[in-house]
Amino acid sequence: MTALNEPTTQPTDEEIFTAHEGGKLDLGVTTSLDGPRALSIAYTPGVAKVSRAIAEDAALAARYTWAHRLVAVVSDGTAVLGLGDIGPRASLPVMEGKAALFKTFGGLDAIPLVLDTTDVDEIVETLVRLRPSFGAVNLEDVAAPRCFELEARLVEALDVPVMHDDQHGTAVVVLAALRGANAVLGKSAADQRVVVSGAGAAGVACAKILVAAGVGEVTVVDSRGIVHAGRAGLNPVKEELALVTNASGLRGGIAEALRGADVFVGVSSAQVPEELIAGMAPDSVVFALSNPDPEVHPEVAGRHAAIVATGRSDFPNQINNVLAFPGIFRGALDAGARRITEGMKLAAADAIAAVAADDLAADRIVPSALDPRVGPEVAAAVALAARQDGVA
Amino acid sequence: MTALNEPTTQPTDEEIFTAHEGGKLDLGVTTSLDGPRALSIAYTPGVAKVSRAIAEDAALAARYTWAHRLVAVVSDGTAVLGLGDIGPRASLPVMEGKAALFKTFGGLDAIPLVLDTTDVDEIVETLVRLRPSFGAVNLEDVAAPRCFELEARLVEALDVPVMHDDQHGTAVVVLAALRGANAVLGKSAADQRVVVSGAGAAGVACAKILVAAGVGEVTVVDSRGIVHAGRAGLNPVKEELALVTNASGLRGGIAEALRGADVFVGVSSAQVPEELIAGMAPDSVVFALSNPDPEVHPEVAGRHAAIVATGRSDFPNQINNVLAFPGIFRGALDAGARRITEGMKLAAADAIAAVAADDLAADRIVPSALDPRVGPEVAAAVALAARQDGVA
Repeated sequence: MTALNEPTTQPTDEEIFTAHEGGKLDLGVTTSLDGPRALSIAYTPGVAKVSRAIAEDAALAARYTWAHRLVAVVSDGTAVLGLGDIGPRASLPVMEGKAALFKTFGGLDAIPLVLDTTDVDEIVETLVRLRPSFGAVNLEDVAAPRCFELEARLVEALDVPVMHDDQHGTAVVVLAALRGANAVLGKSAADQRVVVSGAGAAGVACAKILVAAGVGEVTVVDSRGIVHAGRAGLNPVKEELALVTNASGLRGGIAEALRGADVFVGVSSAQVPEELIAGMAPDSVVFALSNPDPEVHPEVAGRHAAIVATGRSDFPNQINNVLAFPGIFRGALDAGARRITEGMKLAAADAIAAVAADDLAADRIVPSALDPRVGPEVAAAVALAARQDGVA
Repeated sequence: MTALNEPTTQPTDEEIFTAHEGGKLDLGVTTSLDGPRALSIAYTPGVAKVSRAIAEDAALAARYTWAHRLVAVVSDGTAVLGLGDIGPRASLPVMEGKAALFKTFGGLDAIPLVLDTTDVDEIVETLVRLRPSFGAVNLEDVAAPRCFELEARLVEALDVPVMHDDQHGTAVVVLAALRGANAVLGKSAADQRVVVSGAGAAGVACAKILVAAGVGEVTVVDSRGIVHAGRAGLNPVKEELALVTNASGLRGGIAEALRGADVFVGVSSAQVPEELIAGMAPDSVVFALSNPDPEVHPEVAGRHAAIVATGRSDFPNQINNVLAFPGIFRGALDAGARRITEGMKLAAADAIAAVAADDLAADRIVPSALDPRVGPEVAAAVALAARQDGVA
């Protein structure tokens, strides 16, 4: 567990800033404009026939415009990476990067829309007004708990796939990784207790998908300790979480939660001491996903746990959202889905786990983030699930 | 005047629709994502350094994101080509075409944002909220007279170049064409009376730029006749127009306006009978710009006028906005201009006329719409004017 699996020199600041000069995206034109005839096809007067056809049958917009395969990458810049609330302008390089990942790993076009408002009503209203311009919404780096309401409101208001990737992208890959780990260990999720450290966007979504996937018990710990029914001051999202987690009625903090637990999923930056990892059940699984500093260093965790994963590319078992979101959106858009269901997310996790199954090992519980098989496999599984769930 | 200057077969419907399959735009990625190291530069963790730098100095967004060279092509779909109010979804192929022209002729990236609202307050509010996402706004195909208020409100609300191209793009090219015609004829605009037929977006802007450029007299005619001070029911835009046009105090309709006039600029679809063209001053100039049916057929106009132009590519002297808008926005963005001034528009017209001056003739008063010299020349002139006008 000590070896770096992709040893590289660290990029210098100069390399990073040079790569960002002028931004990371540009627009391509897919039709010819190289002469008067081409111009009269792609623009006036020819384009008028296409516009008139769409005016008569709105469904033709899906065929003759780019909107149906265009993902709006939307952020208000309030929870950007580990940087926090740095505002929409400073979030733009991240959103451009996300758009680039959509293109590279999902074959989808995406445009960053960064919003100079953090008001849920205003963000919903803005995207409703822009609705004819895009085919799906990837919410990104919106602070919790506002992100929960915002996503729910957008799903309600728009007839297109909407997903807050910090929640569900993470949750899908965590579930896939757990399936991989259990396949290696010969264990069943139904017999396991999983501790989720963090009740922000990722923590809540991880807890929910693990419950939905049939994990034996989920214990959620936030900065004030174990989330349990009746704890004072729970927000509505945590209240709901308390109803479906912690069946054992545990009380206390991360120490009490981890004692005898089978799986640790860290999605807060709270550091976990070695002795708590040591006190987990035999053959434990540790996913220490905080970036750049995992909740527990993988070398330390590896002294006690059977399987360790992080969010970093320089250790084995990188749990990276890019395994999920390009294929999820691609599958949803390919199917013409009106929303992204729980079934579609579970199907995505299964598809990722199935790719990993070809070459499974304790240090290969998920595919590489760059594995070109993953996007198409996830897309196909998600499209199928969309039809099965009746949303396409 | 009877020969087509670019004889081509008419594109078939099949060709047109095939060229529009899947839309006409796609997104390109300008940085490498081909391995874990590239990913760690363009996305996490490297991108965090760029975001942090912008959070500390917002001006760096212009250097390290695509927003500063990105034009939002914004429409509500209420006045699309000759099709009228066909709605935002059906307008999208036109906006995609416009974005493609920005790329091809201005080297600028552009994204269509089509809005499912026609309320001026809501459109302004939406673009203000999206402000960090783009560097300029090209308004397109918004119905008059709402377009005038919308443009003025956006110029006020946003600190970036905003231009309604149906107004000012047309006006700039009309002025350039008039300069070309007068150079051929050895005339001066100061001695001319110009009749503008139409007081919609293009007509109002043409009248204004001609007045600003020192044309002797401008007479505007709308569907109710000559626009003059005191005419009942004038909207505020036409009231303002009445103050700076029609110094002779003409009354009546198009017949009275054209009698003895030097120049006709048609930007309505109202047909003009041959005898009215015949009654213009000697060596008259006729710009019959309606598409696809000019106000008077160029062959008919050519029996009486010394110079004839249309909006069509299949007759000589095509007055096409593509000569103006790519270079205007490119120059404004290159200079970092906060707005587009009258001086920048006049400079654009001069630059277009200067390119035409190299090879001027009665059937070559403007450059070809595809002339690759025009965009860069216009951009340079506009950037210079922006600095002279103190907006950059």
